[in-house]
Amino acid sequence: MTVRFAILGAGRIGQVHARAVAATPGARLVAIADPVAEAAEKVARDHGCDIRSIDAIAASGDVDAVAICTPTDTHADLIEQFARAGKAVFCEKPIDLSLPRVRAALATVEAEGATLMVGFNRRFDPDFMALKAAIDAGKIGAVEMITITSRDPGPPPHGYIQVSGGIFRDMTIHDFDMARWLLGEEVETVQAQASVLVDPEIGAMGDYDSANVILATASGRQCVITNSRRATYGYDQRIEVLGSKGMVSARNMAEANIELADGGGFTTPPLLNFFMTRYTAAYANEIAALVAAIAEGAVPPTTGQDGLMALALADAALLSVAEGRVVRLSEVTGQA
Amino acid sequence: MTVRFAILGAGRIGQVHARAVAATPGARLVAIADPVAEAAEKVARDHGCDIRSIDAIAASGDVDAVAICTPTDTHADLIEQFARAGKAVFCEKPIDLSLPRVRAALATVEAEGATLMVGFNRRFDPDFMALKAAIDAGKIGAVEMITITSRDPGPPPHGYIQVSGGIFRDMTIHDFDMARWLLGEEVETVQAQASVLVDPEIGAMGDYDSANVILATASGRQCVITNSRRATYGYDQRIEVLGSKGMVSARNMAEANIELADGGGFTTPPLLNFFMTRYTAAYANEIAALVAAIAEGAVPPTTGQDGLMALALADAALLSVAEGRVVRLSEVTGQA
Amino acid sequence: MTVRFAILGAGRIGQVHARAVAATPGARLVAIADPVAEAAEKVARDHGCDIRSIDAIAASGDVDAVAICTPTDTHADLIEQFARAGKAVFCEKPIDLSLPRVRAALATVEAEGATLMVGFNRRFDPDFMALKAAIDAGKIGAVEMITITSRDPGPPPHGYIQVSGGIFRDMTIHDFDMARWLLGEEVETVQAQASVLVDPEIGAMGDYDSANVILATASGRQCVITNSRRATYGYDQRIEVLGSKGMVSARNMAEANIELADGGGFTTPPLLNFFMTRYTAAYANEIAALVAAIAEGAVPPTTGQDGLMALALADAALLSVAEGRVVRLSEVTGQA
Amino acid sequence: MTVRFAILGAGRIGQVHARAVAATPGARLVAIADPVAEAAEKVARDHGCDIRSIDAIAASGDVDAVAICTPTDTHADLIEQFARAGKAVFCEKPIDLSLPRVRAALATVEAEGATLMVGFNRRFDPDFMALKAAIDAGKIGAVEMITITSRDPGPPPHGYIQVSGGIFRDMTIHDFDMARWLLGEEVETVQAQASVLVDPEIGAMGDYDSANVILATASGRQCVITNSRRATYGYDQRIEVLGSKGMVSARNMAEANIELADGGGFTTPPLLNFFMTRYTAAYANEIAALVAAIAEGAVPPTTGQDGLMALALADAALLSVAEGRVVRLSEVTGQA
Repeated sequence: MTVRFAILGAGRIGQVHARAVAATPGARLVAIADPVAEAAEKVARDHGCDIRSIDAIAASGDVDAVAICTPTDTHADLIEQFARAGKAVFCEKPIDLSLPRVRAALATVEAEGATLMVGFNRRFDPDFMALKAAIDAGKIGAVEMITITSRDPGPPPHGYIQVSGGIFRDMTIHDFDMARWLLGEEVETVQAQASVLVDPEIGAMGDYDSANVILATASGRQCVITNSRRATYGYDQRIEVLGSKGMVSARNMAEANIELADGGGFTTPPLLNFFMTRYTAAYANEIAALVAAIAEGAVPPTTGQDGLMALALADAALLSVAEGRVVRLSEVTGQA
Repeated sequence: MTVRFAILGAGRIGQVHARAVAATPGARLVAIADPVAEAAEKVARDHGCDIRSIDAIAASGDVDAVAICTPTDTHADLIEQFARAGKAVFCEKPIDLSLPRVRAALATVEAEGATLMVGFNRRFDPDFMALKAAIDAGKIGAVEMITITSRDPGPPPHGYIQVSGGIFRDMTIHDFDMARWLLGEEVETVQAQASVLVDPEIGAMGDYDSANVILATASGRQCVITNSRRATYGYDQRIEVLGSKGMVSARNMAEANIELADGGGFTTPPLLNFFMTRYTAAYANEIAALVAAIAEGAVPPTTGQDGLMALALADAALLSVAEGRVVRLSEVTGQA
Repeated sequence: MTVRFAILGAGRIGQVHARAVAATPGARLVAIADPVAEAAEKVARDHGCDIRSIDAIAASGDVDAVAICTPTDTHADLIEQFARAGKAVFCEKPIDLSLPRVRAALATVEAEGATLMVGFNRRFDPDFMALKAAIDAGKIGAVEMITITSRDPGPPPHGYIQVSGGIFRDMTIHDFDMARWLLGEEVETVQAQASVLVDPEIGAMGDYDSANVILATASGRQCVITNSRRATYGYDQRIEVLGSKGMVSARNMAEANIELADGGGFTTPPLLNFFMTRYTAAYANEIAALVAAIAEGAVPPTTGQDGLMALALADAALLSVAEGRVVRLSEVTGQA
Repeated sequence: MTVRFAILGAGRIGQVHARAVAATPGARLVAIADPVAEAAEKVARDHGCDIRSIDAIAASGDVDAVAICTPTDTHADLIEQFARAGKAVFCEKPIDLSLPRVRAALATVEAEGATLMVGFNRRFDPDFMALKAAIDAGKIGAVEMITITSRDPGPPPHGYIQVSGGIFRDMTIHDFDMARWLLGEEVETVQAQASVLVDPEIGAMGDYDSANVILATASGRQCVITNSRRATYGYDQRIEVLGSKGMVSARNMAEANIELADGGGFTTPPLLNFFMTRYTAAYANEIAALVAAIAEGAVPPTTGQDGLMALALADAALLSVAEGRVVRLSEVTGQA
């Protein structure tokens, strides 16, 4: 079978997914929607698909699945609209910045029996997949201590910061999902420290640009996440997992695999600087995983529940910073 | 403009080029030719192109360029046929195993004013391109001493060895081209040592499986090429260039960028094991370079002359082994 | 001048310092003291020095300096005894497990105008010194986020755990000193998470074997310390410092600088497995620094105050774990 | 027992060996000889030994062994003098620049039943020893292809070049010994290419500064040696051995084990720049190996025969360059 896709939103990430759909065997890009005509036309031209309105796509008989690549505040509504329209739904993280709104959307998805995949692209990165496979193969024994280092090359525009929900909901959320994926147990407690070291304007907006978080599970497994909105050497994305029998780590990706040696020493190039180049393969694998899940009638590998839990961890981290204490995740989720 | 391609030969390398053409903006795959119906059908199905005979392609008005991916002994004839047919020609190396036959084919190409690009894919590898760019930018000063390490994961089938023209014409030929590309001066002398260490059958066929070659230019620049038909750790492809001001080197590509640490030490995965996975990006860039050259009416970056010179170096290396002496390239090319 | 040393305690660390003194130009080993005759005799034989009692050393006119390498619970008393005896004193960390006792000892040292150096060997490691020098040279701009990874190859004997004061006072104390040395500002708050993952017996003794700590300064600089009592791949000692302009990191030291490649991948040896082999150069540099300070009448580079502050951080971490909250260092030191 | 040493020559390398003897358990430095009074006095002062003339040392009853660290043209005479005097002899390479003179000296040594160790320090480098141990343990199967990269940071003074015997006898000689040590079979043929790329003055003196050599054994094992008198990034000393089952390589040693990351990429320090700092541990191990051999009445690990064979390989390389052909080692040694 071929899964027929429409993309909602022709911005940066919409284009990434359009390319991924076009390149995936078993998938076909049927339509693009975007209020900005030029943006939609570019995607239509690049990939030979229709331009349609969102409502037209919801009503289209030749669309099996949609990828929601619109601004965050539209995600929950669109998930509900397309779940009701009987389409499989892929939605970029986060589902919403409000936990109750996320819960409501997931309830609709469940009531409709719809398929929902939330875009945690890092789970589909080949290196992180290899790291996970090593853990699953027992190479390091029981997981004990994880360190996730995640730093952006530079802060996003101030306008983005304002609607982002803050560093924990916008940036750390990916690391929270990685932590959940790798810890092998649900997180029980969260503690965090956050500072403004990169840009005072970020502080003026009530947000932070530098943070460390410690997660712990019931059995005492721990995960440290270290974030910064600035890394002059590129997009720093590392994971290290210590287990009872050993350690496995995933390294960064450089612009090129060369080394220059001279009187100043040995120099390798900076890291790939942009999430889209760093995670090119991950985005492609992500769409392929959704296509496979739809084809097999299976649950996609990253669910609405994953989206909800990552957001809950972000809320818990924010509460920890505010109150200077360890926060139990159940305080935020309201579940014992 | 769009360059309309036909691929001659639907084998392994033909499929690689079919994918590359399909993925290249400004290129379109129009037809595939292969005497094996299944092979041709697979390419036609994967990429939605016609199946035609070679002669039909030569006569097709909707084909601008062909990629010759047939057995080596057909290359020269096909180059001539398609040069005469007014198509741009991409041909996998080598053009032929005989220098005079190569010269004759190139003469035809020239007489017809045809475009010919010879497939030295490594020049289009992103890492090797970055290395070359560092040299061209003056980062290491004047090039002095090059070391090229090039080892296959394992020997090819005996049947392939028999028609390959021997290790120098089949395997080292790529390294000879790299050397010419990087030395910045034409090679003047060649000396080589060759052994049979991997497989006695290869020796029984009059070929070698392990070789070292030293090239030198008129000004004394040197290049060592070290080859083996076996490397248990994968497809070993390294280049190191020492200059008056520093050194630049290109490293290998591993299966994944992870590291496992335990009582046995720190282990990273083996190298990508196959030329097609190792050079995926190179093959794509290669076709893009041809498309760009055709679009601009420019000479392709790897010419028939490059193909001829690499073959001449292989012949000189073989003569050096046979006679145990330094061979001047002019002895083989007949040019002073 | 030559600084004449006596070593108190001929155990493991006493032997390390005896060797360091013997090898340091400008220093001479005069005497060794140890209640275990065999231990004292070995040092005396190896380095050609006298065996004396502690009191005899205090009274010796030919001893300028002592190195206290006895069990922790004797440190404070010996510091006071030798400060009063007019000897320069080197003392292994910690001065004592009780902050008030440490303060009392330091008061005596101050009253006597004595020289006291506390043994934080890592400050004298050549790689960590190079890292510090890079920071001081402005290579990374302002320090922002530090990650210290510090893992023992395996837990110490249970008997040692019982008198160690717990993981924070025994193991993390070195990392606390590193953090203070590198942050460039005093630590203001401490939060910690601790678990028992390696050995339940350690938990039964009321201690932990796995911990993460976040330190923060007034301006918001942060340091994460991640500890484990077990690392199958050796003694893991890494520091990474992110600044406004870049990052500097110190790597681990392996048993040998070789790499084995085969079908399983590329393997380098495990890390040096023991603090004495890992920090051989650091111990030598440490004694040389003391000798230089004595010769110049200068304050040693690691003072009693450094010892006190590291212990205070350990106490704060313990309190944080107990109460599940961020602890201000001033709560522990009693200073605003 | 304690081996009582005298050092002949208090220059750079004499001081290195004086330190090594002083630090070796079971060895004692008794005397130093040097016509330059200041040089001898410095060693005597540093290590508390006598100053004696060479002849007095030969006649000394309290000297068991001598280390010859005088200019090359005195080596053979001194070996003979001290072999006759019944002392164990350590001699820096080369024994002499003339093969017949070397043979004559070795004949005297043999006639006297004396102990002679030739200083090939690299065999005692911990990393190269680990590499050799991996080979001997069968980790890479049968040795097939070796690549030795050996580059000086910069050329020696012109005065030194003039008496050095040329690059093959002075610099490559160490690599020839490494090759013999690692190949597991004697070398049968030599071919070489040499150029002047670094300093035209070196060419004016009839020497070369850049060379590649290919050695081959009877069974076809090969070793490439690549030399340059200039490497801006430090003293480049690498070995890579490919075998039937894998590859083992020894890496370079940097000034410090740190990494700086910024907008320019990731930079590690240059290599240790000087043979004495790079091979500090090797020099110490070398003396320890001699002391152990003397103590056990065993043959030292690097013999006069090793010194002779390395020189013969240098002569063969020179002949190969002169005649542009493969040279059989037997042509130089006169043995079939």
